[in-house]
Amino acid sequence: MKYVKYGQCIKCGKTHEATANLTTCDCDGILDIIYDYEAIKADFTKKDLHHRPRTMWRYKELLPVEDTTTPPPLRVGWSPLYEADRLGAQLGLGKLWVKDDGQNPTASLKDRASAMAVAKATEAGAKVIACSSTGNAASSLAGNAAAAGLKTYIFVPSRAPKGKVAQLMTFGATVISVQGSYEDTFELSKAAIDKWGWYNRNAAINPYLSEGKKTVGLEIMEQLGWEVPDYIAISVGDGCTIAGLWKGLKDLYAIGFIDKLPRLISAQAEGCCPLNRAIESGEDWYPMEENTIADSIAVGVPRNAEKALMAIRESNGIVVNVTDAEIMAAQKLLGQTCGVFGEPAGVTGAAGVKKLCDAGILGENDTVVSVVTGNGLKDVANAIAACGEPISIPSDMEQLLSAFAEHNIVVD
Amino acid sequence: MKYVKYGQCIKCGKTHEATANLTTCDCDGILDIIYDYEAIKADFTKKDLHHRPRTMWRYKELLPVEDTTTPPPLRVGWSPLYEADRLGAQLGLGKLWVKDDGQNPTASLKDRASAMAVAKATEAGAKVIACSSTGNAASSLAGNAAAAGLKTYIFVPSRAPKGKVAQLMTFGATVISVQGSYEDTFELSKAAIDKWGWYNRNAAINPYLSEGKKTVGLEIMEQLGWEVPDYIAISVGDGCTIAGLWKGLKDLYAIGFIDKLPRLISAQAEGCCPLNRAIESGEDWYPMEENTIADSIAVGVPRNAEKALMAIRESNGIVVNVTDAEIMAAQKLLGQTCGVFGEPAGVTGAAGVKKLCDAGILGENDTVVSVVTGNGLKDVANAIAACGEPISIPSDMEQLLSAFAEHNIVVD
Repeated sequence: MKYVKYGQCIKCGKTHEATANLTTCDCDGILDIIYDYEAIKADFTKKDLHHRPRTMWRYKELLPVEDTTTPPPLRVGWSPLYEADRLGAQLGLGKLWVKDDGQNPTASLKDRASAMAVAKATEAGAKVIACSSTGNAASSLAGNAAAAGLKTYIFVPSRAPKGKVAQLMTFGATVISVQGSYEDTFELSKAAIDKWGWYNRNAAINPYLSEGKKTVGLEIMEQLGWEVPDYIAISVGDGCTIAGLWKGLKDLYAIGFIDKLPRLISAQAEGCCPLNRAIESGEDWYPMEENTIADSIAVGVPRNAEKALMAIRESNGIVVNVTDAEIMAAQKLLGQTCGVFGEPAGVTGAAGVKKLCDAGILGENDTVVSVVTGNGLKDVANAIAACGEPISIPSDMEQLLSAFAEHNIVVD
Repeated sequence: MKYVKYGQCIKCGKTHEATANLTTCDCDGILDIIYDYEAIKADFTKKDLHHRPRTMWRYKELLPVEDTTTPPPLRVGWSPLYEADRLGAQLGLGKLWVKDDGQNPTASLKDRASAMAVAKATEAGAKVIACSSTGNAASSLAGNAAAAGLKTYIFVPSRAPKGKVAQLMTFGATVISVQGSYEDTFELSKAAIDKWGWYNRNAAINPYLSEGKKTVGLEIMEQLGWEVPDYIAISVGDGCTIAGLWKGLKDLYAIGFIDKLPRLISAQAEGCCPLNRAIESGEDWYPMEENTIADSIAVGVPRNAEKALMAIRESNGIVVNVTDAEIMAAQKLLGQTCGVFGEPAGVTGAAGVKKLCDAGILGENDTVVSVVTGNGLKDVANAIAACGEPISIPSDMEQLLSAFAEHNIVVD
């Protein structure tokens, strides 16, 4: 890895050789992968990107993989960035884009981290990978590993939606559904990984996973022609995703591809917002109940709190908490105005943007990218709860007319 | 439309001006869009494709849209074509590729037709589009229309899986769930479209939709570097998709981009295979019950039988019928070996390929592309039925060890 210097503990500053199976520091601090930006700057220009594959692997100078490593088979990354002009106008924003990261192979942003995990596991010579997850990290790991011929052990809390469980079972993972919270799930996975020595895909343990996630930030900037928006909004659970996004943006700034940094908008669910609460209070974070329909971000004990809080603070970010009702409304709004169907946690960023617009904090002078982190098909029950059931009738025109009248549908 | 000559009836041969709201012939025959291949040949080379957007719209010379028409917003097409070497070896094939068309914005191949419908509706000045559908045409139309700001009326049979219904409701369609078969659903939609004059997205009525679907064939060939495989396998219901695929391949042959044509493999469910039965018997098709879990291809009265039968016969194709159990096994097989999660109808083509390999009809001298037409997340209940439920335990190592022992899981 020509451009990777080492892994550095964000707590004690100690550096560690960037071996393929790197985990946390002796002090238990999470590591950050440090690059030689001067060397990258000398070798890597925007023009180099023109002919590269449209996947997350196009940014190879900024990724911690060996030159000899073949990217895993599934096509991860380069999800569409849509200009959401009608929705932007409706919200009163200067400009709004929606990055639909539900358009990844297993339908969530987590594919970026899981593809990286598979690449690094291969480098480490591992044949088995394991993780705990609220669902998306799990299904993305199972899919990416299956495509690469690796075995997986997956721990999910029993509340994980059926869509994610169906993916896991189809991809042939050994799935342990833990009767308890995400915290309980994480602890059992940790004990099992310690016992059997599986390659660890827990994002707050394995420092390479943030490096996969950061590609969402690299892509947003390239897709915007390196013109930096004022804000990037994203939902926050464990903290790894927003930390990864920020790392990507800082990388681009460090190598001179962008000339300023956007402010982050950290959106959490009101029923589970330990990180946003810490930012608001200026105090340390402490655990919270996991009380929201947005299962992927229902994380009462965030495993990457430090990196996430640093990212929000460094970016002079805004935090916003939304209710489940606001999440459901955002799901409908994105579907109806953009044709984008996000899962509850996936649209929490957009719900936050709407709330900030309604409060007058964001407005016509602001340009915003809202990241949708997962596809709504993963959690159909909540989508139907949000958007209702269809009109049900026999195949009969009279009954159609009556049903339209009853539902106040005026055909134009 | 510089290269489109006219629409021509496949039954009586009559030609019709290619207006944006073209439907069927006076004789009720379905129309085919006819191009000026000589003119295309003179103007269009493979090299022209190098710098075009990676969407279905990159093949503009072969598409029936005006130069001035802006493609609808969602990013449709250019789905991944995976080399499925492990699965191919397992089946004893010379070479196998899997085209995952579940990687489209609303997670099915039908996005190709719906994006075309939205483009043509816009050209026709329509503000409302309608269709009947087993589910995927519906959800893709709802999504693509929502993104473009058009209204939709959608008719689905009441058996449509919840995932597709959730998409429809989220995209803000007016959805009529018809208590009856697909045939009943189609008839009510037809009566309503006639009554209110909505733009018609029924694929067997609107001749432009096959032209959208054919882009899957164009892409396969471009992704293979214009090297023609021996076979392309795809699931068949209404008949429009296989007919569209064949049209795309013939277009490429006509303009000299490929030098031969592959043979088609038409895969239907044993419980609903009127088209394959017609090929096998050499007689006309006649209606059948809709008795399969593969809802998207459960079409007892195929609306595009003629074009589909012509395609299979012209290509010297093979037909294969698979049981629901074989479909479920294929779902698991694709998931576990390729990391591709298809819905039951989506993997019916692959189930057919496996069956033909098992029967010794396909083997080590054959190269095959298998198209997965829709994402398994659309029908989670059947995936769980196919692949089982996870192990459920509290967060406790002793219980994990017992559960592994009970399930004969030996950790390596």
